[in-house]
Amino acid sequence: MVEKMSGAVTYPKGYLAAGARAGLKESGNDLALVASECPAVAAGVFTTNIFQAAPVTVSKSRVPASSVRAVVANSGNANACTGEQGMLDALSMTSAVAQQLGVPADSVLVASTGVIGHAMPMDKINAGIVDAVRSLSVDGGASAARAIMTTDTFPKEAAIDVSIGGCMVRIGGMVKGSGMICPNVATMLAFITTDAAISPEMLQKCLSRSAEISFNGLTVDGDTSTNDSVFVLANGMAGNKRIESDGPELDAFQSALDEVSTSLAKQVAIDGEGATKMVEITVRGTESFEDARQIAKTIANSPLVKTAMFGNDPNWGRVLAAAGRAGVGFDPKSVKLFFGDIALLRHGEPVDFPQDAAHDLLTQPEVKVLLEVGAGSGTATVWTCDFSYDYIKINAEYHT
Amino acid sequence: MVEKMSGAVTYPKGYLAAGARAGLKESGNDLALVASECPAVAAGVFTTNIFQAAPVTVSKSRVPASSVRAVVANSGNANACTGEQGMLDALSMTSAVAQQLGVPADSVLVASTGVIGHAMPMDKINAGIVDAVRSLSVDGGASAARAIMTTDTFPKEAAIDVSIGGCMVRIGGMVKGSGMICPNVATMLAFITTDAAISPEMLQKCLSRSAEISFNGLTVDGDTSTNDSVFVLANGMAGNKRIESDGPELDAFQSALDEVSTSLAKQVAIDGEGATKMVEITVRGTESFEDARQIAKTIANSPLVKTAMFGNDPNWGRVLAAAGRAGVGFDPKSVKLFFGDIALLRHGEPVDFPQDAAHDLLTQPEVKVLLEVGAGSGTATVWTCDFSYDYIKINAEYHT
Repeated sequence: MVEKMSGAVTYPKGYLAAGARAGLKESGNDLALVASECPAVAAGVFTTNIFQAAPVTVSKSRVPASSVRAVVANSGNANACTGEQGMLDALSMTSAVAQQLGVPADSVLVASTGVIGHAMPMDKINAGIVDAVRSLSVDGGASAARAIMTTDTFPKEAAIDVSIGGCMVRIGGMVKGSGMICPNVATMLAFITTDAAISPEMLQKCLSRSAEISFNGLTVDGDTSTNDSVFVLANGMAGNKRIESDGPELDAFQSALDEVSTSLAKQVAIDGEGATKMVEITVRGTESFEDARQIAKTIANSPLVKTAMFGNDPNWGRVLAAAGRAGVGFDPKSVKLFFGDIALLRHGEPVDFPQDAAHDLLTQPEVKVLLEVGAGSGTATVWTCDFSYDYIKINAEYHT
Repeated sequence: MVEKMSGAVTYPKGYLAAGARAGLKESGNDLALVASECPAVAAGVFTTNIFQAAPVTVSKSRVPASSVRAVVANSGNANACTGEQGMLDALSMTSAVAQQLGVPADSVLVASTGVIGHAMPMDKINAGIVDAVRSLSVDGGASAARAIMTTDTFPKEAAIDVSIGGCMVRIGGMVKGSGMICPNVATMLAFITTDAAISPEMLQKCLSRSAEISFNGLTVDGDTSTNDSVFVLANGMAGNKRIESDGPELDAFQSALDEVSTSLAKQVAIDGEGATKMVEITVRGTESFEDARQIAKTIANSPLVKTAMFGNDPNWGRVLAAAGRAGVGFDPKSVKLFFGDIALLRHGEPVDFPQDAAHDLLTQPEVKVLLEVGAGSGTATVWTCDFSYDYIKINAEYHT
């Protein structure tokens, strides 16, 4: 079972981490470093936005890889829309870390989050990197998880144990991101570590699949910021027989990675800006996963649904209206809708339901919505949050 | 030139209108009737939502038409998700009007807006229809425009004169709709009248084109509610040579209809729920209108852009991030961005701009955003509004 665990990125064997203060944010640590004691296989998934921040371009060119040593990340400045200088700065961040660690420059990955269009203050960054390398330790995971936070109100970490071919393997991860979840996400950065032995190709395949059902349930393709990145490092120190092809070992690893990713994604939804509750929306009965996801995402993105959730109103009409404009065909007469275990609609028409119980259910911190639109095998789940006064406050009062 | 005019639907020759109280809303008139003194050509465009309200199904089956006599509309109940009984009720509304007017039942069109999933209180509706027919007058346009309002804070009307083949033709229209404009519109209903003589086919063609560049700039295809409808009636009483094919007469009519439709659409954006300003977003330089519209719509739908507008923050990063995830390819290095006449970006990179002037510009009631993404001839304009505390208040406190 997945656990929320402080310091999760250093839970697998052979990882060190640190958080340091470079001075980009007004207060607190803003530079995180995760390093492997030995060369690690690495994979990544990145934003599909046309505007890609410099660190995305650099890291994307370096994975999948077989000998990555570290990932450096800063908050406070996204290094996006910063032109050629931004590229030089991103490269310089990786070479500064590599020099301090005594490893090749291209064995370091980089990620940034924060304001767009401002040059990176490299003096501060470089000083922060020196501090972070000095502070690297097996106890540094929690500090790293705090250093990547921007408007996040709590650090987000998860870890799991999984037996692979009789060998105990660990996976740990941390994530930041608390913009309004869909359709216009503030940057989400996730860093996952494992001591599994696995080939770069298999690791990339597993990460792509995990990201699709977890992080992309928040930040559906095309809905991504300039900086969104998810990294996974696998250093093989668990000693399992290296996973190089499909089979039960890969399945076990995939399933554990899915669990960690999903836990991290849900934590991001819970911490949505101004959120008073997390809303899990599952759509079933379409022809494909993509169709189910498209409907679920349209519901999740609806400001009218989000405000109804904030108001604790079992407003099935808004859910239905959103589903109906998602661009996916289905028979209106086949629709069933549940909030928790309370049925609101059958055969596309409202049923009598206990109003008070529905209202009480919506006052809970986690609300589940289930929409069935037919008999197909397609199903998808997305996570979002409600839309409160504080969301407006946070985003209207944040100034460039 | 188009004018905002009280009573605009009865400005063209031969139209009568009335607003009456059926008692569906807590107060005020909630039943509107527009009638032509002689059979009118009629056209319509309707929601693309899978869930179509009963009045949409009825009216859609009756246009284009050559002998429509009236349109009846109610606010307070959408007659949506109401099953077979809803269909019977919508048909019954048209036959009640027809009976009172002494015209064929299928010469009456119907539209509804309000809560979803509640049976129409037909006793109230029928009494309202009797009152409305009794009150029909050439001075009833303004009353009708008020009777279709739901959360609208002001009635929305526009009219224009246009010379067609030397003959003076009038077009008038009214609209209701003030949900958050895109992506999840509350119902928009528009009623346009003209005394032009024109064939049903040409009228439908003109309306479809006008709706595409005006109302669909608010409620882009697929983003429509269960009830959205736009109607146009043309009774020929201006005496122009009937327009039956392409040519300068059609062009003149099209252009005038475009102006009325665009004025009505902009009034809806200005009255967006909780809006403190209207935002007009133009995208230029794509390969097609559709591409430009897709980018403009993605910017307009971005809660982060909307909240920045509310906060009077010239946050070009949010505009850019939205444009980049619209799913339309363009070269980031070719991008230019203007707020009003202030350039914020050239070649995809920020330029120094006068911060105070940009802030002042954003405090105006109408803000223009222009994004150029290349050298193509595609261009599109959409209208939206900012996202304020009051939007959350209106929609979280509205209960089913």
